Amino acid sequence: MRLLSYLANGEPRFGAAVAGGVVDLTKRLGPKCPDLRSLIARNGLDVARQLVADLKPDHALDDLVLLPPIPNPEKLWCIGVNYKDRNAEYKDNSDLPKYPSLFVRNPSSVVGSAQPIEKPKISEQLDYEGELVIVIGKEGRHIPRERAWEHIFGMTLCNEGSVRDWLHHGKFNVTQGKNFDRSGSIGPWIVTSDECDPRGPLDIVTRVNGEVRQSDSTERLMFPFDFLIAYLSTFATLKPGDMIATGTPTGAGARFTPPRWLKVGDVVEVESAGIGILRNTVAEEQ
Amino acid sequence: MRLLSYLANGEPRFGAAVAGGVVDLTKRLGPKCPDLRSLIARNGLDVARQLVADLKPDHALDDLVLLPPIPNPEKLWCIGVNYKDRNAEYKDNSDLPKYPSLFVRNPSSVVGSAQPIEKPKISEQLDYEGELVIVIGKEGRHIPRERAWEHIFGMTLCNEGSVRDWLHHGKFNVTQGKNFDRSGSIGPWIVTSDECDPRGPLDIVTRVNGEVRQSDSTERLMFPFDFLIAYLSTFATLKPGDMIATGTPTGAGARFTPPRWLKVGDVVEVESAGIGILRNTVAEEQ
Repeated sequence: MRLLSYLANGEPRFGAAVAGGVVDLTKRLGPKCPDLRSLIARNGLDVARQLVADLKPDHALDDLVLLPPIPNPEKLWCIGVNYKDRNAEYKDNSDLPKYPSLFVRNPSSVVGSAQPIEKPKISEQLDYEGELVIVIGKEGRHIPRERAWEHIFGMTLCNEGSVRDWLHHGKFNVTQGKNFDRSGSIGPWIVTSDECDPRGPLDIVTRVNGEVRQSDSTERLMFPFDFLIAYLSTFATLKPGDMIATGTPTGAGARFTPPRWLKVGDVVEVESAGIGILRNTVAEEQ
Repeated sequence: MRLLSYLANGEPRFGAAVAGGVVDLTKRLGPKCPDLRSLIARNGLDVARQLVADLKPDHALDDLVLLPPIPNPEKLWCIGVNYKDRNAEYKDNSDLPKYPSLFVRNPSSVVGSAQPIEKPKISEQLDYEGELVIVIGKEGRHIPRERAWEHIFGMTLCNEGSVRDWLHHGKFNVTQGKNFDRSGSIGPWIVTSDECDPRGPLDIVTRVNGEVRQSDSTERLMFPFDFLIAYLSTFATLKPGDMIATGTPTGAGARFTPPRWLKVGDVVEVESAGIGILRNTVAEEQ
């Protein structure tokens, strides 16, 4: 299934993308299951699948304002440097890291697919970072690596949009440059693990105005998905709807000489074959 | 008003601390205002104050399991190094920073007052950090410094409990060591700005088993509260119920030689005269 969240007539809803459109699950599942996070927490995938099998689409996909698939996650973790070439980009002669770098985005820093992402007024250095995102299905702490796969509900995509000059404000954190309102995006939907095996290998490609800028495969991750789940759950209980953006390949705009920052009107696409395309156009900050 | 969130018979509720106990506001304000975050967002302080004036307490404070006052904030920002002596502690010969360091805690990393905080199984380096916490009342972005005070709903306290050896896992982040489940605490309540003027000066004291370990005043902040609100709102919309832990004074356990880590059974108190005492006992991880 491809599950997504959206606004219809200004009201937040969730549903399933099917041939020809989107089936509205909000109205069928009722107030006990008000959003996609609740569906996952209530283990409602089979019920949703049955419902969808019997129904015609309620909406055309293009009529909807897509939201991030989980608009209200408890946690949106982001892994900092994960594909092998990325560590070399820092040119600090460091060995491959023993543990992943980790930071957090707040939910307001991302929009859904096909919504504008915003170039801040205060900076010219908006950059893209295409990433694969794990969506947690089953709660757990101290999850052994070999059982990590059971905790993945599905996969989605992220443009982990970053404001480079604000990444280095802090003594030892990148939080500021990763948390500009509507500077990134997640979506278009979550593809459930039965249709997109998180064991992969999964490809990840980022294009700007059609030009490929990033292209890599999860075969080259320093910290594979099962490691990340085991590692994060060492300190925090992973919960249904939590998301883990798993790191970006080499080739962000900052890596060019001179840097190639995003400009208003640029179209950024993040694609993975088994998931789909997350597409956003850059707009001025509102 | 002193507003707090709690469990009564296992059910999450919120109310006001008054002489002799706690007035339950959940049952009086109904489903449109299910939690303290909604009360703040709905600008419901005057209504709550009127209600409370006419009512006797529903609960004795000691009968309740206190939660963090806002159990479900969209953002729980933490400022990294803010009191003047703290920068010197890093002994990296750096000038005073131009911008604050910033990181994020997830809501599950904190408990309410009088609840056990957990020493992780995996580390012996659990440490305390007493802090004053701003609670945002009014939404805003690009808030000018001179209008920052209008956006503060009230103040609370935090033991921004940290697991030191896990702070340095990442290349440029402290996220891991700041996000262990139940490793810190927030509370006991929010004191509204009319009763505790956020302009201060406010004192902040941390004791371990009665011994003063940290003691400072907001007069010595490098980045005062109005600066923090202006700065954070440059990139993110601040929303009702968002919290900003404003940094800890010198004197955490890590600063002693040898370090004085928290042990099971230790009692940590964070106090500020106009707010109250946040008190937690250290327990083994469950």
